[in-house]
Amino acid sequence: MNLKKRLRDYGLKVGKMSTGPKNTITDVKGVMVGHTTLSNNSVQTGVTAIIPHTGNIFLEKYIGATHVINGFGKTIGTIQIDELGTIETPILLTNTLSIGTCADSLLKYMIDSNKEIGRITGTVNPIVCECNDMFLNDIRSFSVTNEHVLDALQNASETFEEGSVGAGTGMRCFGLKGGIGSSSRTFEIHSNTYTLGVLVLTNYGKLSDFTFLGTPLGERLMPLIPSKVESDKGSIIMVVATDLPVSDRQLKRILKRTSVGLSKTGSFIGNGSGDIAIGFSTANTIPHFSKSGLQALSQLHEDEIDQSFIAVAEATEEAILNSLLSANTTIGRDGNTLYSLRDYIDQLI
Amino acid sequence: MNLKKRLRDYGLKVGKMSTGPKNTITDVKGVMVGHTTLSNNSVQTGVTAIIPHTGNIFLEKYIGATHVINGFGKTIGTIQIDELGTIETPILLTNTLSIGTCADSLLKYMIDSNKEIGRITGTVNPIVCECNDMFLNDIRSFSVTNEHVLDALQNASETFEEGSVGAGTGMRCFGLKGGIGSSSRTFEIHSNTYTLGVLVLTNYGKLSDFTFLGTPLGERLMPLIPSKVESDKGSIIMVVATDLPVSDRQLKRILKRTSVGLSKTGSFIGNGSGDIAIGFSTANTIPHFSKSGLQALSQLHEDEIDQSFIAVAEATEEAILNSLLSANTTIGRDGNTLYSLRDYIDQLI
Amino acid sequence: MNLKKRLRDYGLKVGKMSTGPKNTITDVKGVMVGHTTLSNNSVQTGVTAIIPHTGNIFLEKYIGATHVINGFGKTIGTIQIDELGTIETPILLTNTLSIGTCADSLLKYMIDSNKEIGRITGTVNPIVCECNDMFLNDIRSFSVTNEHVLDALQNASETFEEGSVGAGTGMRCFGLKGGIGSSSRTFEIHSNTYTLGVLVLTNYGKLSDFTFLGTPLGERLMPLIPSKVESDKGSIIMVVATDLPVSDRQLKRILKRTSVGLSKTGSFIGNGSGDIAIGFSTANTIPHFSKSGLQALSQLHEDEIDQSFIAVAEATEEAILNSLLSANTTIGRDGNTLYSLRDYIDQLI
Amino acid sequence: MNLKKRLRDYGLKVGKMSTGPKNTITDVKGVMVGHTTLSNNSVQTGVTAIIPHTGNIFLEKYIGATHVINGFGKTIGTIQIDELGTIETPILLTNTLSIGTCADSLLKYMIDSNKEIGRITGTVNPIVCECNDMFLNDIRSFSVTNEHVLDALQNASETFEEGSVGAGTGMRCFGLKGGIGSSSRTFEIHSNTYTLGVLVLTNYGKLSDFTFLGTPLGERLMPLIPSKVESDKGSIIMVVATDLPVSDRQLKRILKRTSVGLSKTGSFIGNGSGDIAIGFSTANTIPHFSKSGLQALSQLHEDEIDQSFIAVAEATEEAILNSLLSANTTIGRDGNTLYSLRDYIDQLI
Repeated sequence: MNLKKRLRDYGLKVGKMSTGPKNTITDVKGVMVGHTTLSNNSVQTGVTAIIPHTGNIFLEKYIGATHVINGFGKTIGTIQIDELGTIETPILLTNTLSIGTCADSLLKYMIDSNKEIGRITGTVNPIVCECNDMFLNDIRSFSVTNEHVLDALQNASETFEEGSVGAGTGMRCFGLKGGIGSSSRTFEIHSNTYTLGVLVLTNYGKLSDFTFLGTPLGERLMPLIPSKVESDKGSIIMVVATDLPVSDRQLKRILKRTSVGLSKTGSFIGNGSGDIAIGFSTANTIPHFSKSGLQALSQLHEDEIDQSFIAVAEATEEAILNSLLSANTTIGRDGNTLYSLRDYIDQLI
Repeated sequence: MNLKKRLRDYGLKVGKMSTGPKNTITDVKGVMVGHTTLSNNSVQTGVTAIIPHTGNIFLEKYIGATHVINGFGKTIGTIQIDELGTIETPILLTNTLSIGTCADSLLKYMIDSNKEIGRITGTVNPIVCECNDMFLNDIRSFSVTNEHVLDALQNASETFEEGSVGAGTGMRCFGLKGGIGSSSRTFEIHSNTYTLGVLVLTNYGKLSDFTFLGTPLGERLMPLIPSKVESDKGSIIMVVATDLPVSDRQLKRILKRTSVGLSKTGSFIGNGSGDIAIGFSTANTIPHFSKSGLQALSQLHEDEIDQSFIAVAEATEEAILNSLLSANTTIGRDGNTLYSLRDYIDQLI
Repeated sequence: MNLKKRLRDYGLKVGKMSTGPKNTITDVKGVMVGHTTLSNNSVQTGVTAIIPHTGNIFLEKYIGATHVINGFGKTIGTIQIDELGTIETPILLTNTLSIGTCADSLLKYMIDSNKEIGRITGTVNPIVCECNDMFLNDIRSFSVTNEHVLDALQNASETFEEGSVGAGTGMRCFGLKGGIGSSSRTFEIHSNTYTLGVLVLTNYGKLSDFTFLGTPLGERLMPLIPSKVESDKGSIIMVVATDLPVSDRQLKRILKRTSVGLSKTGSFIGNGSGDIAIGFSTANTIPHFSKSGLQALSQLHEDEIDQSFIAVAEATEEAILNSLLSANTTIGRDGNTLYSLRDYIDQLI
Repeated sequence: MNLKKRLRDYGLKVGKMSTGPKNTITDVKGVMVGHTTLSNNSVQTGVTAIIPHTGNIFLEKYIGATHVINGFGKTIGTIQIDELGTIETPILLTNTLSIGTCADSLLKYMIDSNKEIGRITGTVNPIVCECNDMFLNDIRSFSVTNEHVLDALQNASETFEEGSVGAGTGMRCFGLKGGIGSSSRTFEIHSNTYTLGVLVLTNYGKLSDFTFLGTPLGERLMPLIPSKVESDKGSIIMVVATDLPVSDRQLKRILKRTSVGLSKTGSFIGNGSGDIAIGFSTANTIPHFSKSGLQALSQLHEDEIDQSFIAVAEATEEAILNSLLSANTTIGRDGNTLYSLRDYIDQLI
């Protein structure tokens, strides 16, 4: 069995910046990730939860932003993030038809830990992102339940698996087995070190377009892999966390550069792909209840923002490659099979 | 009992344009509206469904658009409408915490009538809008179920009730009982008659700001009504239908003018209000499956668009007033009570 | 001659909030306004300059934002404001065909006072807004010159005229003589007093739609005024200044509420109207050159933002009415004549 | 002297699609390009004009769209294009400080050929895009005049030069000499052949990031070229023309994919880069004056749009490489020198 599951296990890397210690999104302090994996014959799906901080995210919000690269997607929660510039719940990833269940479960989870909601304060804005795993998963069976969502939220930790786990269980990327991947970068600004991490759910791309560190590997894989040539449907969700003190506008600018990493893997951002980025900064906390009316927020000078742009481009590309290398060959609905890049990479590089 | 439930029952009207025969959104041919009303002590909520046409809306889509006036809201489905310019499901309205259940139910409803979804074609984009009815409704009890959603979809018809019904059951508007209201306008362009209809779910505004046909009625109502002065929280959802042949861009321009009608009722579009418009045009049908690659679409010349702007402004204002006049005084959670404008209007006009 | 030139000279007012001492945009400390007026037969046009602060606005920028209500307009400079959230030049208003000259002149003005531009730092983003004054002005004669622009910039002061002056010289509003108007509001948050001021350039609306403090005055004016019924072409530019510490996102939210004041005067935001708001906050200064990389910015809690929404709605409506009352009856190109509301108001209120 | 000025002269190409006969934007029928080049010591700048069709573009408009990838730029005209979905003038490219002169000149050019403007119809929306050529050009000298603009408009033709000509005269790209480049693609949909062409003005990127057909060539060029390492300032303007019948929304989607080609050359879309795409479709003509109120427009089914996405990504990347290979080594202001990629490429590939 091939134990090399990440790009750097092969002595390879994307770009020039340093990574955080784990080279995952949880290098940003406080961030945790949990999965529920459903993998049983024609059920190949799940839930992944990203917890922004260990406290009460409803009462102590983070600055948040979204960026829709291509909107053929059903992500929930972006309207309020765009208006108010904050996130107030964990972020859930799942299959397309489970967004209702996930939103419902996340609302109940938030209600349970915040007795004020719906009584002395208003409601709460759940964030649920999705990709369509119908190739491997019998998506019409609505397999995800409230319990699965709670499990993913409750088992979240700083260490987590990548590949065909959680929401990534049934995903397909470049005609290969896709799923969950992550990477991080660190950089210095005026002697302070900042971290930016990315977690992706990969489910896009045609095999023939797959580009590996600048090399058109997809074309060389085509004769090796019994994969049907498909149009670039599917989607990618990119979750970005950073401890850099940025405003929601600056964060949105950072999110836009996920497309740079995405493009380098061979995506042309196909019509049928819902390519959506959501992010948050842990540097400032925005209290739910106003105290003094004003707040002093630390904010990056715009001239210093380029490093975060490079960081997010690099980490997105590497997270995508990690999702492919970590995923296992999987047989799902109707015997549909997706092969792992890991099983072929040694003969190609 | 006061049987005058609509503005025109009082010999009053908004603006100068003609209305359609029913003066509701269902004057646009093919549009139907259904309600499920849950009104029992502390449960004061429900579901309203707007059906765009009587055929299969997934296979025969309509051009659609959205406009977020203020995004303190949780509406589902706008990302894909904005990207693709079409709607492919009915539009559901409900309370804020029931959006998950409604999305889940709508997905199942669509799946049931479209066997291709998740098999030979991709997924489907559910549209769910919401306002927060927590003042009258025990919103934390999650009272809306899948069956309630199906009921609203299945009982939809060209005639429907306004006021404290469906999603409007528990809503509050200007400190009064709000809910569902509707109105329509007709106008001629080069000898052809077009219809535009609006359905609103009203849940916004402070009593002191309420303006009735240009008159500051709210201030005169304050001593009469035992209503607590509240901040402008809540929301308004405005659904617009028209048979005018417009592109998604033109339709979005029309949706933006809902704010004109909204402003004239006294709203200043408060921070806490999720003011969202969603609309569709029935004039062109967009097939789900491409046949010849190209399609000839009928489209309005931009110079002729002003009448639809006036129509939507007038119909929105009148729909709001209809929602207030149609709603009944309602006692809900913890004895919280909202009074009907209808009980006071005779002594004020 | 009627010396009552502003709404409050008649004992009337918009809304309930207090005004600043001058009830103009220059109640916001540091803001100055200058005009160049060209009024000679068929030349009825000019330039108005709003100076954000008395120092070097390129080196010490303000947080800025824009909001396009209807984009049938040629305003210059919004792309960079939207991206970076700052303004770095004065704001110029002029006629539509003079935007090139004004941009060129403003660039030269900025270059002259900033030797770094184009040498050790990049370029500068000029802000020029416009309305179309072709009814009174021979707009095809391109009457505005570089000298006129410099004059407006150099004669800026805290006191300034309203009505048919500067860019307002040839403007038409509701079929009446429009032009420049201003108003301000003050409000308290946690015992601190803040000021918000609006300056408008009014050039929109049909006489029949004109609404004066909730009363449909336009219809009563129609038999009195020899004005041709026109479609709602033209435009309105709304410049908003405040000392409230808001982010660019919050400022954009404030700018969106200019539409509330605009709607109450009778606008339905016609197709042909370029309705654009630009604003800045004087509370934080953003240095051009980064020093320490980070900056502590004072920022309002979102829950406290409603007062600024009401302030901008009220001040916009009152500024519009001031522009109409201050403007003088004017004869321009081909004998085209626009009448002043001031000449009729006494017989109407 | 090296006569190989385009990528395909070297037997190289981007992607897999076919090109049009000229492999430039003028493969789209009716499109013409003209240049005025100012190259004299410290004056290294100019104007490039793209003429959408040979008739009267004001009276017979084309569907148009814009997309701002990064808004650190001063492009004029996007507000109205976004609102109305049409273009009604040629598109000018120039240096940043000449946008005022170019807008003024373009307005006068349009006025001269359209006597209705400012008399019986409204005004006209000029489109002017820019990059900052201050490294080679004494941008503070404002060298571009009205005559230069007219020259570029009047000498436009189907054949045109690339490289250091027109607006590209002083531009820098990846620390090399940048400028004007172009490329085109053709593709079939249901047996009809369509063409999409791109013209770029390249002025962005750091040498170390330069990627040539997937290879990190910049790093290998660094020891060869006496170029200062610079931050990624500057900009890129990408003009897209196609005869594919698309709506403004669909065209905007196409424009968004320019970023795919841009990313593959090594850009991370730096903070200081104004990366802006503007495009038009020649397939439908929108008359200025409404005749019958309605119009039948041919429109692509969304499922067929992917080929245009790939086409624009490929053509953008190839146009950028053509701009670099076509440009000549140039000495400008203060002896600042930029070297041509063409002088080094033979030893690298």
